[in-house]
Amino acid sequence: MPNPTAAMLVIGDEILSGRTRDANMYHLAGELTKAGIDLEEVRVVSDDQDRIVAAVRALSDTYDHVFTSGGIGPTHDDITADAIGIAFDAKVDVREDARSLLAAHYAQTGRELNEARLRMARIPDGATLINNPVSVAPGFSLGNVHVMAGVPSVFTAMVASVLPTMTGGQPLLSRTLQMMRGEGDLAAPLAAMAEAHPDLSFGSYPFQKDGVYGSNIVVRGTDDAQLTKVIAELAKILDVEGV
Amino acid sequence: MPNPTAAMLVIGDEILSGRTRDANMYHLAGELTKAGIDLEEVRVVSDDQDRIVAAVRALSDTYDHVFTSGGIGPTHDDITADAIGIAFDAKVDVREDARSLLAAHYAQTGRELNEARLRMARIPDGATLINNPVSVAPGFSLGNVHVMAGVPSVFTAMVASVLPTMTGGQPLLSRTLQMMRGEGDLAAPLAAMAEAHPDLSFGSYPFQKDGVYGSNIVVRGTDDAQLTKVIAELAKILDVEGV
Repeated sequence: MPNPTAAMLVIGDEILSGRTRDANMYHLAGELTKAGIDLEEVRVVSDDQDRIVAAVRALSDTYDHVFTSGGIGPTHDDITADAIGIAFDAKVDVREDARSLLAAHYAQTGRELNEARLRMARIPDGATLINNPVSVAPGFSLGNVHVMAGVPSVFTAMVASVLPTMTGGQPLLSRTLQMMRGEGDLAAPLAAMAEAHPDLSFGSYPFQKDGVYGSNIVVRGTDDAQLTKVIAELAKILDVEGV
Repeated sequence: MPNPTAAMLVIGDEILSGRTRDANMYHLAGELTKAGIDLEEVRVVSDDQDRIVAAVRALSDTYDHVFTSGGIGPTHDDITADAIGIAFDAKVDVREDARSLLAAHYAQTGRELNEARLRMARIPDGATLINNPVSVAPGFSLGNVHVMAGVPSVFTAMVASVLPTMTGGQPLLSRTLQMMRGEGDLAAPLAAMAEAHPDLSFGSYPFQKDGVYGSNIVVRGTDDAQLTKVIAELAKILDVEGV
């Protein structure tokens, strides 16, 4: 059975303006690979309702899971919950389960659960809350869309909350062979190996180190023994030492 | 006149598998903001011809400029040029101007211009080459799509080559006000300011430092004097010192 597929939607003007360097895509990509869920597409859109709704619908229709980051805080530019509500035609309002989580948290920390903070309890009808052990305000899953915060520490915690609820496939393993030659010298044997092993994925990534050209060859697949064998073959063909 | 719009398409399995953390989006976002070109969407897709073609067509139809990164090297997984050819119905073959650039470079460095490396001279008909001062193999522009390498040093150099050929708008400026209070305490006055200044964009980004909640308020616009005035107003309303 093929692995489940996934897409990610990053929501936020601060990424597109270059103010903030996104960290969540890299984190999610690694976690999904370990879980055997194939991340096949990422989109980044601005804090614009129409854009968010269109992207959520397109990705939700195409992939098994959609993970979003950003736009679920207390300020006027946090519009993700409403956009998800529109995308799924679900009513969005302050929900008692989310409100009581926030009420307990703010009572404990001596801060006020004001109108702005109550916005973080606005959850679409039918959604399941995602636990936030960092700062309490929850994310939520509605259908196949999992809505999480943009702050990296909170995003990471929410991914850890939601991923164990999903059925993954076989984790994608990878092996790397590094050689101090340019990609042009290994392209032909690499293409031949790729053709001989259609169930594996072969990538090659050039780098320069102290002015010398090098390449990392990465082989990906789900069978550890097969990867070991193929990497050994490649090392022999390309005359690289130290697999 | 509104600023020109742009999208970016990142091509590469290595980003989606979590092996590599993308650096090019952050770089391009900052450069476009300085040039007065609004980056409105980013997509990341795998090394899959159909996916690349579909994304290129969708983004090229929607935005003034599309910038791609990745997939123009010499190996079998470098399929961007062919995908662009399909997207624009343009023939792709080794082109003499690109070939002679590579021939001169490899002659000079004593390496062989073999069949694999010649792939890097495959350029769609009608495209203009983008200069690559780092490793010579060129990028290209076809229509409103600008095709560049994924290796960050080369991508950066190609962006520097191609951006001056474009007519930008007014650079987007931003000012940040940092306060050691949570977002929930400033959401109401911030929303009021945003309503009073529809030509500016107001964002708020929470952080934690030594266990204390803080927020960065970011105001963006094109008029420096206006930003200074608005930030001073905000500092007064929120009772923050040291603008």
